[in-house]
Amino acid sequence: MSAAPARGEGTEASTRGEEMHALIRELYPLCRSLTGDGVRETLRVLGRFVPLEVHEVPSGTPVFDWTVPREWNLREAWIATRDGRRVIDARDSNLHVVSYSTPLRRRVPLAELRAHLHSLPDRPDWIPYRTSYYQESWGFCVSERQLASLTEPEYEVCIDATLAPGSLCYGEWLLRGRSPREILISVHVCHPSLCNDNLSGLAVSALLARALREREGEREYGVRFLWVPGTIGSITWLARNAERAGRIAHGLTLVCLGDRSPFTYKRTLRGDAEVDRAAALALRESGFAHALIDYFPFGYDERQYNSPGFRLPVGSLMRARHGRFPEYHTSADDLDFVAPRPLEESLEVVSALLDVLDGNRVYRSTSPCGEPQLGRRGLYRALGGEPDVAELELAMLWTLTLADGAHSLLDVAERSGLRFAQLQRAAGLLRAHGLLEPCAPAENENGRVGCASC
Amino acid sequence: MSAAPARGEGTEASTRGEEMHALIRELYPLCRSLTGDGVRETLRVLGRFVPLEVHEVPSGTPVFDWTVPREWNLREAWIATRDGRRVIDARDSNLHVVSYSTPLRRRVPLAELRAHLHSLPDRPDWIPYRTSYYQESWGFCVSERQLASLTEPEYEVCIDATLAPGSLCYGEWLLRGRSPREILISVHVCHPSLCNDNLSGLAVSALLARALREREGEREYGVRFLWVPGTIGSITWLARNAERAGRIAHGLTLVCLGDRSPFTYKRTLRGDAEVDRAAALALRESGFAHALIDYFPFGYDERQYNSPGFRLPVGSLMRARHGRFPEYHTSADDLDFVAPRPLEESLEVVSALLDVLDGNRVYRSTSPCGEPQLGRRGLYRALGGEPDVAELELAMLWTLTLADGAHSLLDVAERSGLRFAQLQRAAGLLRAHGLLEPCAPAENENGRVGCASC
Amino acid sequence: MSAAPARGEGTEASTRGEEMHALIRELYPLCRSLTGDGVRETLRVLGRFVPLEVHEVPSGTPVFDWTVPREWNLREAWIATRDGRRVIDARDSNLHVVSYSTPLRRRVPLAELRAHLHSLPDRPDWIPYRTSYYQESWGFCVSERQLASLTEPEYEVCIDATLAPGSLCYGEWLLRGRSPREILISVHVCHPSLCNDNLSGLAVSALLARALREREGEREYGVRFLWVPGTIGSITWLARNAERAGRIAHGLTLVCLGDRSPFTYKRTLRGDAEVDRAAALALRESGFAHALIDYFPFGYDERQYNSPGFRLPVGSLMRARHGRFPEYHTSADDLDFVAPRPLEESLEVVSALLDVLDGNRVYRSTSPCGEPQLGRRGLYRALGGEPDVAELELAMLWTLTLADGAHSLLDVAERSGLRFAQLQRAAGLLRAHGLLEPCAPAENENGRVGCASC
Repeated sequence: MSAAPARGEGTEASTRGEEMHALIRELYPLCRSLTGDGVRETLRVLGRFVPLEVHEVPSGTPVFDWTVPREWNLREAWIATRDGRRVIDARDSNLHVVSYSTPLRRRVPLAELRAHLHSLPDRPDWIPYRTSYYQESWGFCVSERQLASLTEPEYEVCIDATLAPGSLCYGEWLLRGRSPREILISVHVCHPSLCNDNLSGLAVSALLARALREREGEREYGVRFLWVPGTIGSITWLARNAERAGRIAHGLTLVCLGDRSPFTYKRTLRGDAEVDRAAALALRESGFAHALIDYFPFGYDERQYNSPGFRLPVGSLMRARHGRFPEYHTSADDLDFVAPRPLEESLEVVSALLDVLDGNRVYRSTSPCGEPQLGRRGLYRALGGEPDVAELELAMLWTLTLADGAHSLLDVAERSGLRFAQLQRAAGLLRAHGLLEPCAPAENENGRVGCASC
Repeated sequence: MSAAPARGEGTEASTRGEEMHALIRELYPLCRSLTGDGVRETLRVLGRFVPLEVHEVPSGTPVFDWTVPREWNLREAWIATRDGRRVIDARDSNLHVVSYSTPLRRRVPLAELRAHLHSLPDRPDWIPYRTSYYQESWGFCVSERQLASLTEPEYEVCIDATLAPGSLCYGEWLLRGRSPREILISVHVCHPSLCNDNLSGLAVSALLARALREREGEREYGVRFLWVPGTIGSITWLARNAERAGRIAHGLTLVCLGDRSPFTYKRTLRGDAEVDRAAALALRESGFAHALIDYFPFGYDERQYNSPGFRLPVGSLMRARHGRFPEYHTSADDLDFVAPRPLEESLEVVSALLDVLDGNRVYRSTSPCGEPQLGRRGLYRALGGEPDVAELELAMLWTLTLADGAHSLLDVAERSGLRFAQLQRAAGLLRAHGLLEPCAPAENENGRVGCASC
Repeated sequence: MSAAPARGEGTEASTRGEEMHALIRELYPLCRSLTGDGVRETLRVLGRFVPLEVHEVPSGTPVFDWTVPREWNLREAWIATRDGRRVIDARDSNLHVVSYSTPLRRRVPLAELRAHLHSLPDRPDWIPYRTSYYQESWGFCVSERQLASLTEPEYEVCIDATLAPGSLCYGEWLLRGRSPREILISVHVCHPSLCNDNLSGLAVSALLARALREREGEREYGVRFLWVPGTIGSITWLARNAERAGRIAHGLTLVCLGDRSPFTYKRTLRGDAEVDRAAALALRESGFAHALIDYFPFGYDERQYNSPGFRLPVGSLMRARHGRFPEYHTSADDLDFVAPRPLEESLEVVSALLDVLDGNRVYRSTSPCGEPQLGRRGLYRALGGEPDVAELELAMLWTLTLADGAHSLLDVAERSGLRFAQLQRAAGLLRAHGLLEPCAPAENENGRVGCASC
């Protein structure tokens, strides 16, 4: 498949980038959290792209070492002067209230109030994003300037929220492939009005899913999309799908894909899994600036998939690195911080990465003793003696050389330096002439694809 | 053995270099091709150096995916004006006729003729080398200046050639070793008047073979020389010797060894085969500038030996890289392009490389617990306390340290940085004092030599 | 354990450094050799630090390829003019007499005498150190100036020594650990008045042993100290303890630890043994300048431990490299060449290295599916959303991530870049909360620790 347009198709590219940015604008005002109606509404919007299934898991459900928390819904939250002037209001930014704050309605002396206020002294105009999911507490996030303006001895404080038994919800959609093996795309949906983290991931995954659906039936691997609240969501899915998780051959979390930084690919814990090699290849071939970084056990849901009990090879595709850009988890991660062009590029890269994974095959030559005679089949130029070889001829020679049931096309690409798509084309020609047979793939202990039947 | 003289023995070196250059001059005029009398005559000349066997394989013989082609012999080929002036004549250069051109004798209008002419616009005085082995066709190769001079409306064209059932011939000579295992030296003989590619390979292999023959019985490995037409020749040999090929433990193709460039060693497909390591060592120890490059599936007959059905570890020793020098496959690859000194150096390097392979042994210490007492055997200086160790003492210490049946002398050389010949001397001394036992070599899966009896 | 004080505890550090320097001053005048009373007296002094056992092995005892030599004791040695003026006297420096010189008392013509004199032309004031352990001979070591002053035609020469059946002696002390596995600390004791080589090793090992003894019962590994004459001493120990040697999991020789150079760690023959990795980590964490160098088969007793028959993973910790500093094996390796501060630093590094080896554990998470919920156990900050993670939190996350029974804390340290002590603290907290179980260690073939029970 080729979900993304080729470089240079400016107009359509712009259209997809614009469409993703529009989707981000639509989702931006919703008050998402680990649970609650903001997530439900977000999933409903995503449902316009693919017929995702929404799962509701009751509060109190044990999921491995955790328990599904109570559901939190916020109606309003504000701080007002005694004369009723609202100086802080969650209507202005849903970052103002600490996520999962307990309900409150009373006058609070300034000194007490200040202990519940979070600000960023170095960034006087930015509002931080804070949560208190697993410890009962309340609080407001304000800009440093707002904090400075709070001079009255007492304020009326309102957090009209419910924190009560309900459910955790997440979205799931599976595009079936010819094989039962799956590629996992996991996207966290729990962050409120933060665009790069992670409305960008939502937008890219939505358009990716739609593009895949348009070509259903063409793929080898199934592709499973999970739109889950961070940490508890992926743990919940794993707890409910421990068997099914074994089908996941490769995976990615998609996060922070709308900013203007170079790409960052964070490797799986294993470090040399097929998805790691496919990501390196897709990024190299994309021509976009990028960095490949080793796994570390913080970040997003890759932590859960890579945990000792599962060890699923799930990497993470980002642009700016989680926690490493100033706007991270602040109100500055807004609609201007993300742009159509970077979103479009991200969609292009993740599509190419999936194409490499899906197209990675192991072949065996049907004529392994010496080279087969390509010339009489019209696959090689007739006139000998010229010093250079055409790229497609070279792609055929490399593919045949490693067609021993022990090397995949990805191996060929890494070793030859040729483009993966060119090697796929070469393999297609050779198969059409009966010179290659596909082998049944078998994951060996190093995560490299080998041939099960050789 | 030491086929090559030590650096600095200027006179003899010059003699060998001059002898090789003279051989090239002798073979230069012959019209070689995949088949035909030019190859037969060439093999006859090589027969002065060693008693090689000439094999004739009938046209039409199936060899794996290929078929032995008809035999091509050229009597004359020219282009003449209507008044009988020969403007192009294969007597001037046998590059003028496209190899395997079909017979022709008729008047050809200029426009039609031009479609059969090959030239090099960027090199107005050079004639290219072209072949049409596997597609029936005819053509002439001319310089750009000759092309420009063809202004008459019509020319008389003659290609007096036969393309008819006959045979493909190749030369083969085996120097037997103490072991049934062999080192393969493969040289392509199909190129006409091109000196570097590959009369240089013919000359170096001829003197190498003669030097080996002079010391017959001294070697562990047999050395099998093949002088074959490119591609079809090695495929034919493999098809007729599929069993015997299993004896080939290491191999080399020798090509482009007469020019003045630094050396290039092209690794086997495996990349870390013993021959790859021996080549790296021999080149490093030679002091000559050189590059080690990875395998790629074009070039010469290493392609066939390394194919999936055989996977013989055959590398390639060159100076200028195949296809990478301007004179490649043109008339500029002439007698001036090759010189005695580079030919001599090439002979020296390939001899040293064979010596490393042949001398690479695995030993086991007879006194493995702690170091043996070298001093009482007169193998170590009597006076202690000096800060440095003599190189030969160091060579003995290193050899003993790794004399565990799992490391070869090549391992010791790589790890110690000591010269291979010094390690051989050390091992000889230690064996003479009963401190080392040779192990039966066993190729392990990584191509490293291990001990079969440990 | 923490034998060394933290950086900055200037006073105590100075005390330990001063104490080691004082010990060196005490041992400096003793005339040590391979055998004899100088070694006995040295071991007696070391006996003040730990209750070491002194072994006496009779001359003539076969030890592998060697034989325990006769015992050598020197009473006096001098060169005197005919009128009785002693121009060279071993009382001034016990380097003056070649170690193991045969007894002599006669007039020697200058020409004959000069053949028995050793000096350093480039260092006119320094006396070299020479031995003749395994070949009967006599000689004197003198400064170049002393040599020049010998102008009389004949000298009275006296070497009042005994070279007679006796015994070789060495010291041994074992601190028992909870496990039968041991760490070997081997120190050569045979050098006479040379401070860096190896009174520094004696001093560091003495204080190390004492510090370990003060905390007996706290360690996992036993620590075996050997104070042995070089080469023959370690060979003798190995020959008498071939079975016991199998318990040695890691080892170090301690040499040249008092000079002011950066540290040098010489790897084991294996090169990636656990002790090699622990040394690299301990040196990196120490902040001291250092180099890691590959094994080579000369130096000190690591040669014997790493020999093919044992292959014990024994590295070597030094500051200046053996044989690479001008003062090496000369009278300039004196009391000024070593200093309290470098000795103190060396003690600190070797202590830290032992702590890494001793603390290196393999764990298994009790909650391997997804991350355990650290927050509800008070192990993770309550407030979410902040961009950075505290180092201890990070240490817990890394430890849990690799708590799969296949990775040790050293693996975690190498991979995370976190300090080993921080990881130990994290592992301790996690164990206290029931989140980690220790695995029984099992050395796998690569020398990496794995879990025997998984």
